[in-house]
Amino acid sequence: MTTDRTSALDELRAALGAALSTDATELEAARADKSGQRSAAAPLAIVHAASVADVQAALRIASAHRLPVVPRGAGTGLAGGAMAGADRLVLSTARMTRIHEIDAVDQIAVVEPGVIVAELDAAARKQGLFYAPDPASRAWATIGGTVATGAGGLMCVKYGVTREAVLGLDVVLADGTLMRLGHRTVKGVTGLDLVGLMVGSEGTLGVVVGATVRLLPVPAGTTATIGAHLPSVVAAGAASAAIMASGVRPAALEIIDPLALSRIHAYLGLPLPLDGTTHLLMQTDGPQAIADAESALALVRAAGGDGDVSTDDASAEQLLTVRRSFHAAMEAHGTVLIEDVAVPRRRLPEMFAAIERISAEFGVEIPTVAHAGDGNLHPNFVYSGDAVPEPVWQAAHAVFREALALGGTLTGEHGVGVLKKRHLVDELGEHQLALQRRIKAAFDPLGIMNPDAVF
Amino acid sequence: MTTDRTSALDELRAALGAALSTDATELEAARADKSGQRSAAAPLAIVHAASVADVQAALRIASAHRLPVVPRGAGTGLAGGAMAGADRLVLSTARMTRIHEIDAVDQIAVVEPGVIVAELDAAARKQGLFYAPDPASRAWATIGGTVATGAGGLMCVKYGVTREAVLGLDVVLADGTLMRLGHRTVKGVTGLDLVGLMVGSEGTLGVVVGATVRLLPVPAGTTATIGAHLPSVVAAGAASAAIMASGVRPAALEIIDPLALSRIHAYLGLPLPLDGTTHLLMQTDGPQAIADAESALALVRAAGGDGDVSTDDASAEQLLTVRRSFHAAMEAHGTVLIEDVAVPRRRLPEMFAAIERISAEFGVEIPTVAHAGDGNLHPNFVYSGDAVPEPVWQAAHAVFREALALGGTLTGEHGVGVLKKRHLVDELGEHQLALQRRIKAAFDPLGIMNPDAVF
Ligand SMILES: Cc1cc2nc3c(=O)[nH]c(=O)nc-3n(C[C@H](O)[C@H](O)[C@H](O)COP(=O)(O)OP(=O)(O)OC[C@H]3O[C@@H](n4cnc5c(N)ncnc54)[C@H](O)[C@@H]3O)c2cc1C
Ligand SMILES: Cc1cc2nc3c(=O)[nH]c(=O)nc-3n(C[C@H](O)[C@H](O)[C@H](O)COP(=O)(O)OP(=O)(O)OC[C@H]3O[C@@H](n4cnc5c(N)ncnc54)[C@H](O)[C@@H]3O)c2cc1C
Repeated sequence: MTTDRTSALDELRAALGAALSTDATELEAARADKSGQRSAAAPLAIVHAASVADVQAALRIASAHRLPVVPRGAGTGLAGGAMAGADRLVLSTARMTRIHEIDAVDQIAVVEPGVIVAELDAAARKQGLFYAPDPASRAWATIGGTVATGAGGLMCVKYGVTREAVLGLDVVLADGTLMRLGHRTVKGVTGLDLVGLMVGSEGTLGVVVGATVRLLPVPAGTTATIGAHLPSVVAAGAASAAIMASGVRPAALEIIDPLALSRIHAYLGLPLPLDGTTHLLMQTDGPQAIADAESALALVRAAGGDGDVSTDDASAEQLLTVRRSFHAAMEAHGTVLIEDVAVPRRRLPEMFAAIERISAEFGVEIPTVAHAGDGNLHPNFVYSGDAVPEPVWQAAHAVFREALALGGTLTGEHGVGVLKKRHLVDELGEHQLALQRRIKAAFDPLGIMNPDAVF
Repeated sequence: MTTDRTSALDELRAALGAALSTDATELEAARADKSGQRSAAAPLAIVHAASVADVQAALRIASAHRLPVVPRGAGTGLAGGAMAGADRLVLSTARMTRIHEIDAVDQIAVVEPGVIVAELDAAARKQGLFYAPDPASRAWATIGGTVATGAGGLMCVKYGVTREAVLGLDVVLADGTLMRLGHRTVKGVTGLDLVGLMVGSEGTLGVVVGATVRLLPVPAGTTATIGAHLPSVVAAGAASAAIMASGVRPAALEIIDPLALSRIHAYLGLPLPLDGTTHLLMQTDGPQAIADAESALALVRAAGGDGDVSTDDASAEQLLTVRRSFHAAMEAHGTVLIEDVAVPRRRLPEMFAAIERISAEFGVEIPTVAHAGDGNLHPNFVYSGDAVPEPVWQAAHAVFREALALGGTLTGEHGVGVLKKRHLVDELGEHQLALQRRIKAAFDPLGIMNPDAVF
């Protein structure tokens, strides 16, 4: 360690006491997130911030020493954004877990960044409200991490992604300055929208230390759940596009492709589905839930499929469990690289067809699930060992190229992180990437905030 | 005119031909928007861009000559953002009026910036969709102008403001570079969210030359409209907060205070209301519309008021006409300065009470309407002559201070423009204002984009 790094650590220890850790096991864990990848070497140290003041102190010292900082929540990210390598300081907000306030009249919550998404939602539900962004990782992911990635989820097809849920943010910049961005009000256009800019910035602009988020009233009436099967993934994509175009607004609309479905069934010990069978899962809520579900089912039938509408919680839960077991079922087969392309909804069948073609061309299996109502697909690559095999990279690149060609995007909800960095320019172009870098520099002139990610 | 300005005009004329105008009447009109104010002197010239290439050519020449540029749509803004003064080039996108595409499956539209909001909505409705942002100026305001101000409207309490409706933007920067920001997909987190940053940037970052916007399916079922009266504006504020807290999601929830109400009635030739009578207007839509309206009416009664629910279009239209005539009714009394504060919904009664207090203290009348469901109030100051009288400014400042003290914001939807510039630092603080300026410089290093507005 250089003498400067030694003295940086000394200063951090003096300022933060036990909140600073250099425990080898903790540092080792901070090399990875849930992307299946890890950094080349362990970071220098980790700050477990307990307060805004801790975050400010850590960043002031880091700035003085030009020490790169990697913010970290629960480490469930899938893009490598929280993977910390050599000579990095990890700044964890996972221990800032207070829910300051839930206001049922204003329908907002004021929380610290380490609050777990599912816990905020549970607290809101006690007052007849809910927190809409529901990534499948909601039981572990933090508000800070989901704000930083702009997380989506199953229900965002109806209720919006994290960006729509965030009204105000407290952010500490690289130099330790605390900024209060945005509003407690639902509307506000005073100056540039820096809250929107922070959402999805993946730790490259500053550290989220507090959030004011919007809550929604729990919809009245029953929830209807459709579990349907279609003869092919292309047919399922067509059914999904038709449902969205019909004006029905599902609260969730998911597709599980044949390969993913058979692996999930195997994982859960369910009878194996027939070859080619694709699963379509849909939920509707509100007073028209059942009528909406029936008319969606008619469209499924028109696309050659069939299924049932159920309104009891137990069978709904069973259907959701199938979907939620996807990641675990994949991990049972090896290391998982999850992609996250999105395409305009009407291009969904084409994108599914392209994935089948790419799978054949590169000789790799690509089990895929999709938040179909949003046109957001998660093609998965499962391999053994630590290093991503070359054909997998090539197939993943082919998937990106195809999504862009269809008018889509590299990442619908997981972010760019470290893993999609090299493709960023393909989507943004040189000029926009340069502009984004200038904006990053306006927040972080020394370039110490998560320098391995995005840019 | 300096020789440099003469040669800038020569270059603009050579590049743009008849699209460049120095017609005195047009230049005179470009001094004003609908804020009641006007710039001290007429601008140099106006470009009526017909294409993206026109915008690029104008900006390249403006950059070369460090000529300040004021983007302009329909000129209906209320914050002075499009008021062009001496030595400014007005860049109007009002003639770029093509609707390129309405896609009913993807539920999006791709439009030029000069398209009128109401025209886009009408075109969408032909396909069973609608464009949600509905400023009361929707019959005149342009997509470019509403994107640049981040416009709200009556229905945004349920369906979101302009920011939520915009997926992608084509923007020309000060140096003439065309950037394609955002997506055609409903989700996407590739890099920083520059679309969100452009929305509400009031022409200070670049010129919007194209937009991809989200359309929503027209809700099924009847629309129910409540016209209610309450004994005081504070009671109406309390009723509104109670309705929102009850979980009902109104499609519009407006309050018209006693002074505003009596002026509107006088303007429309309706019988004058009793002293103190406050009007509450609410719409609900979707399958539960009538039940929601009934339960809201119960809350109005609990707050001491009464009213009717109507479901026929004619009486609904009559009620909306009262609300929509507000601005015209004010203008019949003199020059109008419209403010636009927003407060957390539960503080609405306090804000109304404060406005009454401020009115008494400064001896100025402040007729007020509110998008009450959003906590967004429009206190109006009506005076005679061109210059805002000093007591009016003072009362307006007191209104701002009060809104900020209640946890609110200076502007819910109209923007900062020129008129609220001096108060910006009160809300943002020095540090954040400096950060916003650095971001502005990342887009516009020469500082030629709308330099009189916001910063
Ligand atoms: C099984 C599983 C299912 C998933 N399902 C979904 C899904 O449906 N939708 C979806 O969008 N994602 C999903 N994800 C991805 C992941 O959960 C999200 O990206 C989540 O937002 C990460 O939250 P986190 O707290 O774990 O953040 P981390 O992984 O710790 O960090 C993620 C990024 O945010 C930054 N960051 C973290 N905290 C802060 C902070 N306080 N301030 C600034 N930057 C910060 C980090 O630097 C990093 O770049 C899933 C992941 C798993 C493992
Ligand atoms: C009667 C009346 C009612 C109103 N009701 C509402 C309401 O309910 N809600 C609401 O939010 N507003 C309302 N407004 C305000 C106004 O209509 C909005 O601000 C609207 O967005 C302005 O659109 P415009 O096309 O007239 O823009 P302009 O007034 O021409 O310009 C407004 C701002 O946008 C910039 N701009 C314009 N075009 C572009 C472009 N292509 N690229 C970049 N910048 C551009 C200008 O520089 C200026 O800063 C109302 C106004 C009136 C007169």
